[in-house]
Amino acid sequence: MPRKIAIVGVGLVGRGWSIVFARAGFEVALFDSNPAAVAGAPSLIRQSLDKLVTHGLIENADTVANRIQPAQTLGRALEHAEYVQESVFEDVAAKQNILTAIDANVDSATLIGSSSSGIPASAFTEHVKCRDRCLIAHPVNPPYLAPVVELIPAPWTSRQTVHSVRSLMESVAQVPVEMTREIEGFLLNRLQGVLLMEAWRLVEEGYATVEDIDRTIKYGLGLRWSFMGPFETIDLNAPGGVADYAERLGPLYHRIAASRTEHHVWSPELISEVERQRRMMLSADDLTRRMAWRDERLMSLAVHKRDQEERA
Amino acid sequence: MPRKIAIVGVGLVGRGWSIVFARAGFEVALFDSNPAAVAGAPSLIRQSLDKLVTHGLIENADTVANRIQPAQTLGRALEHAEYVQESVFEDVAAKQNILTAIDANVDSATLIGSSSSGIPASAFTEHVKCRDRCLIAHPVNPPYLAPVVELIPAPWTSRQTVHSVRSLMESVAQVPVEMTREIEGFLLNRLQGVLLMEAWRLVEEGYATVEDIDRTIKYGLGLRWSFMGPFETIDLNAPGGVADYAERLGPLYHRIAASRTEHHVWSPELISEVERQRRMMLSADDLTRRMAWRDERLMSLAVHKRDQEERA
Repeated sequence: MPRKIAIVGVGLVGRGWSIVFARAGFEVALFDSNPAAVAGAPSLIRQSLDKLVTHGLIENADTVANRIQPAQTLGRALEHAEYVQESVFEDVAAKQNILTAIDANVDSATLIGSSSSGIPASAFTEHVKCRDRCLIAHPVNPPYLAPVVELIPAPWTSRQTVHSVRSLMESVAQVPVEMTREIEGFLLNRLQGVLLMEAWRLVEEGYATVEDIDRTIKYGLGLRWSFMGPFETIDLNAPGGVADYAERLGPLYHRIAASRTEHHVWSPELISEVERQRRMMLSADDLTRRMAWRDERLMSLAVHKRDQEERA
Repeated sequence: MPRKIAIVGVGLVGRGWSIVFARAGFEVALFDSNPAAVAGAPSLIRQSLDKLVTHGLIENADTVANRIQPAQTLGRALEHAEYVQESVFEDVAAKQNILTAIDANVDSATLIGSSSSGIPASAFTEHVKCRDRCLIAHPVNPPYLAPVVELIPAPWTSRQTVHSVRSLMESVAQVPVEMTREIEGFLLNRLQGVLLMEAWRLVEEGYATVEDIDRTIKYGLGLRWSFMGPFETIDLNAPGGVADYAERLGPLYHRIAASRTEHHVWSPELISEVERQRRMMLSADDLTRRMAWRDERLMSLAVHKRDQEERA
């Protein structure tokens, strides 16, 4: 019998997850409290699969699509599932409600990961029986192209759960990263957040344009980061490695940090200014077309990185 | 007569610049106060050119190499040069000394860019006659693969200088970004700095390993940033664009920022811990080999990005 995964919540994120698991050979059941969403999901998933075939990222769309089946009820979706990926709307009450429903229907060995990008598992799993088998498994969109998945346990999540979900994610070609405990924003959004705060501040203070800040990253910093990350980048950027780098550059970074001890919210005027600059580069009418371009670029980059890693 | 560039200081950065300009058809004169450095530069440059040929990034190494010639004196290097790229050791006194020497030898129309990554132009150009023709032109290493160049004027730099250096950089396939005025760390190192500060803090507080933080970037955040930058990323990450994104995610980022108002220096213990984790992944003996791997990956990524941009 093929191993089975339940996808609960079939919006953009849930549909992306279904491709991750079906691509790796799992049987995938789709459930959503909105029956229309479940009914519409297979054709949307099929569109994504066809694009992956075009880029050579999967071989056969039919084979993968046939592994993904809508379920009429939550109970049916959960039956015999070894893992549930919950991806319902990002709202504490919605998360609490679906966890209660999952708890009432789930097998006693099934593990549950939530795609929550901001709400920690402790906010919605405390009172369910299966709470030691629940954790956050936060993906980047779309998970079949950006493979990192953040695993964050609640205080009551068992070590075995973290270990098993990590193994499962590795077995489906995702790249799990683990946090030892909860913190707001987890890893990815904290790292994005601090960079964005500085970027917005530089625009606010008139040092540079939105366009030039983006160019600084995409034609500079972002190149190394896309295949090494920030620590390996600095480890290779001083003759003696990262400790040598810290001695050389640490004082500069501390002075920069010391200049930014006060934070303030993005003002309506600042948001308008950033919006104005972006709309000069890309009209609102073109946002959807540009999102499709982004997805094409992500697919091409995935092919490039796969080829590079196979050669290594 | 071919247009001419003078490279003053032929360490790693100066040699990289010589390839940028020679690749674009300029005659390039190399000067360094250390004659041995000038004598050794052509063969090191040749090694880099051969690798670029292997990757299809330039057609003929001889053609490019023949445009790069050592000069015996600073005066000879500067003669008829339309632009000087100064890349001497990062030290205020060294920068002041070389600017004084350049000032005494340079044509009245020649523009001067400094590769300084930290010292602003105001710290070493105030008292030279040519000061209105001086600015910072800070590259990423190597500039022929990571094309961004930060242009930062001193208070006395003329607008015409900024404009002309920007045009020159665009004409040699670099990507200039402009700051309106000086600030410590410029754009690139400020953005790198804030992300590093958070990354080190997360390790210090035991939330995640060095390896998992790198994986969060290289298999997640860094993918989009390598072809869009942070503003376009968020502009395409909400249905209504960047203002919509700011409304949805702004509060999360402000809470993250508010949790990090106190900064402290990287302690010796923290530096040792990061060093320990890195050395478990990569021994000190393997640093050089891994730097060569990084350069290969940067070349492959440059080819990938060129192909993507030609298709667009």
